[in-house]
Amino acid sequence: MNIEQIKEVVVRHAMAARGAALKLGQLPGDARNAVLIAMAEALVKEKDDILFYNEIDVQAAKDAKLPAALIDRLALDEKRIQDMARGLREVVSLPDPVGEIIADWTPPVGVHIDKIRVPLGVIAMIYESRPNVTVDAAGLCLKAGNAIILRGGSEAINSNRALVKIISRAAYGAGLPQGAIQFIETTDRAAVAELVKLDTLVDIVIPRGSSEMIRSIRENATVPVLAHGKGLCHTYIDKAADVRMAVKIAFNAKCQRPGVCNAMETLLVHKDIARTVLPELNKLYRQAGCEVRGDEEVRSIISDVKIASEADWSTEYLDKILSIKTVASLDEAILHINRHGSGHSEAIVTNDETAARRFLMEVDAAAVFHNASTRLHDGGVFGFGSEIGISTQKLHARGTMGVKELTTTKYVIYGHGEIRE
Amino acid sequence: MNIEQIKEVVVRHAMAARGAALKLGQLPGDARNAVLIAMAEALVKEKDDILFYNEIDVQAAKDAKLPAALIDRLALDEKRIQDMARGLREVVSLPDPVGEIIADWTPPVGVHIDKIRVPLGVIAMIYESRPNVTVDAAGLCLKAGNAIILRGGSEAINSNRALVKIISRAAYGAGLPQGAIQFIETTDRAAVAELVKLDTLVDIVIPRGSSEMIRSIRENATVPVLAHGKGLCHTYIDKAADVRMAVKIAFNAKCQRPGVCNAMETLLVHKDIARTVLPELNKLYRQAGCEVRGDEEVRSIISDVKIASEADWSTEYLDKILSIKTVASLDEAILHINRHGSGHSEAIVTNDETAARRFLMEVDAAAVFHNASTRLHDGGVFGFGSEIGISTQKLHARGTMGVKELTTTKYVIYGHGEIRE
Repeated sequence: MNIEQIKEVVVRHAMAARGAALKLGQLPGDARNAVLIAMAEALVKEKDDILFYNEIDVQAAKDAKLPAALIDRLALDEKRIQDMARGLREVVSLPDPVGEIIADWTPPVGVHIDKIRVPLGVIAMIYESRPNVTVDAAGLCLKAGNAIILRGGSEAINSNRALVKIISRAAYGAGLPQGAIQFIETTDRAAVAELVKLDTLVDIVIPRGSSEMIRSIRENATVPVLAHGKGLCHTYIDKAADVRMAVKIAFNAKCQRPGVCNAMETLLVHKDIARTVLPELNKLYRQAGCEVRGDEEVRSIISDVKIASEADWSTEYLDKILSIKTVASLDEAILHINRHGSGHSEAIVTNDETAARRFLMEVDAAAVFHNASTRLHDGGVFGFGSEIGISTQKLHARGTMGVKELTTTKYVIYGHGEIRE
Repeated sequence: MNIEQIKEVVVRHAMAARGAALKLGQLPGDARNAVLIAMAEALVKEKDDILFYNEIDVQAAKDAKLPAALIDRLALDEKRIQDMARGLREVVSLPDPVGEIIADWTPPVGVHIDKIRVPLGVIAMIYESRPNVTVDAAGLCLKAGNAIILRGGSEAINSNRALVKIISRAAYGAGLPQGAIQFIETTDRAAVAELVKLDTLVDIVIPRGSSEMIRSIRENATVPVLAHGKGLCHTYIDKAADVRMAVKIAFNAKCQRPGVCNAMETLLVHKDIARTVLPELNKLYRQAGCEVRGDEEVRSIISDVKIASEADWSTEYLDKILSIKTVASLDEAILHINRHGSGHSEAIVTNDETAARRFLMEVDAAAVFHNASTRLHDGGVFGFGSEIGISTQKLHARGTMGVKELTTTKYVIYGHGEIRE
């Protein structure tokens, strides 16, 4: 396709979504829930089909020698399909955000004001290798009364095409207005460049992927951008930490699933506790095949690790690599995190309540954890059913974004002839 | 000053604000309120000084033959100064947004989650002729724990300089961290272009002014933009309207203060009631010196009005000019508004509850009014003390923006060793 044809295709998708959004905005919550239930049932019923097409993508990724972390994000299995279906059902069980009265009051002038929640309209979702995003995003957007335009990564094209076909058929069969789920098949990047400029048809664009992809969209978009941010996350083991808990959390934060944004990239350890925790942690990381890099003080305790360079403190590995730094104080830890962190998820392990409180208040991030793993920063874990992404920006939504973050508000004012005096 | 010098000045202001923001974020609510009270007292005490410098600006604007509506926005009098001081005191009386727990829950994994409200950090406010914005914006930003960088219009430079001097002295005297109020004196536009690119120092920029000014900032900014939107507002007089109420509201919406964003620009009248309401309304508009333009049907009823062109339906006059259009149905009114309106403030006058409900739900705007004047869409009227502006965007904040809209959120997670299984 040439650029004009791509543009035409993208505009056609966006216009179809816009038309559907008008009808979808009037659909009652029960009807939207019925659509989501039908989607969940179809996924489970047609799981063999999904796995068949996913295997094509996974094999192609392996043949192309793509990184292990990417293949992990790409691969589906029966459990992951069940998780998608369960996510949809959890979203069904959430209260309907549309029409929710967030606040209501009667100011002195005499009118009554309702501040209500309303759908955004049309949401364009641009993502990379995880096929579950197709289902999670569609579910959350439809629950919030929005039409969705999906544009997944080329490496997941067969999985995504199969998923969209299955959920769309189920959704329209259950009464979803035609056109409310749009899937852009072409993997040509020009399609994204066109899509993010359709500000009269698309209300927001949500990019979820590499920093470069997000930056490119931010620079080109005239549609407002709500980005899934990069995660350069830290765990700080304070001198007053419970050692067993610290080891458990620091191991989990790095190794439970290294390829995702809320995994730890740098471990900070107070020098007074470094000799106690590092040897055991190092053993666990070794066993898990995780490469460790450390500063000089770390290497004086666990000698078999590489030296960390300055660049390591600013690197999101998304892989089985960890940098470890010793710090002399809580202040040094907070300073390091505020300087190098991406404002995503930051944890402290300590039994010192004062230190914990200072860390939680002074670290500037979307989520701050006391005695828990950064891996818990997740819409599913938080009880949102699933998530549309995790925002590290400060406007509109910060941290994991669920159904409420896919809405806007409207003041509805009821008067009896009131005017401005 | 050359461009390098301007850049240096702007960076110095931004760094001072950033430094102050760190301290300001830790200042208790009582201390922030004490600062606002001191500012309010100083304004009243030094009102003669303010009026003296404002008169210089007003005279210059008159000499330059600037439009009457602009001079109205620029001019201060004792009442407007009292209003600023009262606005600050109302902001003091609002609950402290900082640290507010918006939601808290314990998901199945066992951690406890608080979603809390925190300051944005550093806010840059770029505005035009209304000097009260200087005080309103400073008050709201400080209440929400943010440092502020003020950049007013050149036509109000003397008023703004005097206001900043007075409120800053009072605020620092009452314990505000040094640097939390920054005022950019140079009226060179290059200063704005530099300011909106300082994304490591400034958290958001709020432009409040002409559409061209806002578009230029949106195009150049790397700092996220929260814009005060243009107001192309309508009032629709339904066939089931109370005639006396309709006349009162339609007159107020246009004439009470024509130069502001929530004033009506186009009046829509159902054809079945046009003969009843238009002659009386026309008489009132004439008496107020307001020019009326109408479609052919309007002119067949009130013959002494100009013909409205297609361009009139898309024009924000901000002046004593009104376009009037007849419509054959509620649907036609909603369609016209959704097509030509700017998504700001839209009103219906009717005693038909079904028609009202459809209008309120189907018109896509930040504020929708039933039987009340669009002029009421205002932070002060709504009980927010004052407002930082009125947003017509859908992300982060929509409609009048008060203290809460100048904050972001943070998830604070309290664990006991929880990890991701």
